[in-house]
Amino acid sequence: MIVAIAGGVGAARFLRGLLQVVPADEVVAIVNTGDDTVFHGLHVSPDIDTVVYTTSGAIDPERGWGLAGETWTAMSSLQRYADQGAVTWFNLGDRDLATHLWRTGRLAESATLSEVTEQLRQAWGLGFRILPMTDQRVRTMVDTTNGELGFQEYFVRHQHGVPVTGVRFDGIDRAVAAPGVLEAIATADAIVVCPSNPIVSIGPVLAVPGVRDALISRRDHVVAVSPIVAGAALKGPADRMLTELGHESSVVGVARLYAPFVSTLIIDDADSTSADAVRAAGVDCIVTDTIMSRPGVGAALARTALLAARPSSVEGHLE
Amino acid sequence: MIVAIAGGVGAARFLRGLLQVVPADEVVAIVNTGDDTVFHGLHVSPDIDTVVYTTSGAIDPERGWGLAGETWTAMSSLQRYADQGAVTWFNLGDRDLATHLWRTGRLAESATLSEVTEQLRQAWGLGFRILPMTDQRVRTMVDTTNGELGFQEYFVRHQHGVPVTGVRFDGIDRAVAAPGVLEAIATADAIVVCPSNPIVSIGPVLAVPGVRDALISRRDHVVAVSPIVAGAALKGPADRMLTELGHESSVVGVARLYAPFVSTLIIDDADSTSADAVRAAGVDCIVTDTIMSRPGVGAALARTALLAARPSSVEGHLE
Repeated sequence: MIVAIAGGVGAARFLRGLLQVVPADEVVAIVNTGDDTVFHGLHVSPDIDTVVYTTSGAIDPERGWGLAGETWTAMSSLQRYADQGAVTWFNLGDRDLATHLWRTGRLAESATLSEVTEQLRQAWGLGFRILPMTDQRVRTMVDTTNGELGFQEYFVRHQHGVPVTGVRFDGIDRAVAAPGVLEAIATADAIVVCPSNPIVSIGPVLAVPGVRDALISRRDHVVAVSPIVAGAALKGPADRMLTELGHESSVVGVARLYAPFVSTLIIDDADSTSADAVRAAGVDCIVTDTIMSRPGVGAALARTALLAARPSSVEGHLE
Repeated sequence: MIVAIAGGVGAARFLRGLLQVVPADEVVAIVNTGDDTVFHGLHVSPDIDTVVYTTSGAIDPERGWGLAGETWTAMSSLQRYADQGAVTWFNLGDRDLATHLWRTGRLAESATLSEVTEQLRQAWGLGFRILPMTDQRVRTMVDTTNGELGFQEYFVRHQHGVPVTGVRFDGIDRAVAAPGVLEAIATADAIVVCPSNPIVSIGPVLAVPGVRDALISRRDHVVAVSPIVAGAALKGPADRMLTELGHESSVVGVARLYAPFVSTLIIDDADSTSADAVRAAGVDCIVTDTIMSRPGVGAALARTALLAARPSSVEGHLE
């Protein structure tokens, strides 16, 4: 069984590749919910939805989030209420709204986020398990030079353009790893930390009580794919955020952050000259193509990651 | 100042006529919220919205509810979750969704329904005041031969096709008339009970503590328009519901229900032979055309109603 620790776009693309090389029923994605938020009373789970929409082939390939062929009638109609306090900076497409309406209704009926996410998987016909990191409410809060912001406010409203001075995960102390999370980590043949923002995508998952320790105890089987390529994030603010929070925006910076619980870091060909520095940070290093927007790269990357985790029970399954 | 006690479609059409004959700033609509409900976490106020959409000219004229030019992408996308517990029997159009999204967000920010409704009025550029009957949660519950149902479940899901054995207004004991409601009734020059279902549209408003007594004390200035024409409701289940609950489905039945707080009942030409029976029930009776789907009838009906309430201060204002 393969565990993927996942944020949004980068993780979803890795998972799409992974599902090309191992049977879906052997894959468990543990997904960040620190980005979850409530807009207009609707519970939005951006990373879970990006994983579901991407792996089911329904994602809008250009935006990287939301559904292909989307329409925006509800959002444009919301402009009528712009002067009356409507939140108009967060776009939810009409098709995507159905997911949030349904999820919100189910949660109001006292279903857990785990239960709703399992039903979401079924509704989209996906064969792998998707576990939210926790069923409790955790909210990634970003301290900035403009004051503390909710994650979506930082990321979408301010287009991650304001300097970050700190990050905290509100509610994390009361959070419990969702059913199956710690068990999956404990028993996985291989664990992949997907190429997602180390601070605000992987960070919340690690912060759920018990998860980081569980990974540390499986370190020999934990492989990470660097979300930083040639010093920059492929998407989003990971590079600036690392720098602003005192880390190095480089594969070496990632290696230092991950070394306690990751035994191998996969870095892009563009960073080949940093491989020794990564090893000096205490992790093995594999250099390969990690840019998954190119066809076939995701599957090859997944294969590389699984081989690096050396799970003999998995090798036989590679398709 | 003119007060209209309002339910949904019939009341909204009467208000549209009323606004043609008196200045908007002299009109106060007190609207039923017993139909309000929460779908998918969104607060829906069907009667308030029908009043707003109708008087602003945005209503879909054929359906009688919702917006003209509506699209249904979110609802059709919700079908994906039909096997996972999605409520798919209540249609909310994409444009209409914006209203519910915004209202739900505002209520979550602790705005009262009164405050939100005042903003709704502003957003649609309406000049008359719209007061929900109460800011508290009241839910019309319909006891049927299929068990107790929420109003929308009875009305929409079962298409008001199941026999009704009782009606109660859940939460009414704790409800307080919304700010301005009792004051408007106390000081109005004329009060019109609009042609809405007496049991489930006007009934909840009357049941708000203080409202019925306030109307009784203004009885001489209270006029009602019968929602029953020739024994039948123009729309909806008022006729069957009256019969099932032991009343007469006729203008006489309406007169008997309303006599304690209404001094004049306006009935349709089709019921002219019942005028004496209406008077025998203890209310004055005016016979005129009340079918507002025909052009000009709403304005003429409003003029008739105002003259019947004999508010000398109003006559000068009739336009």
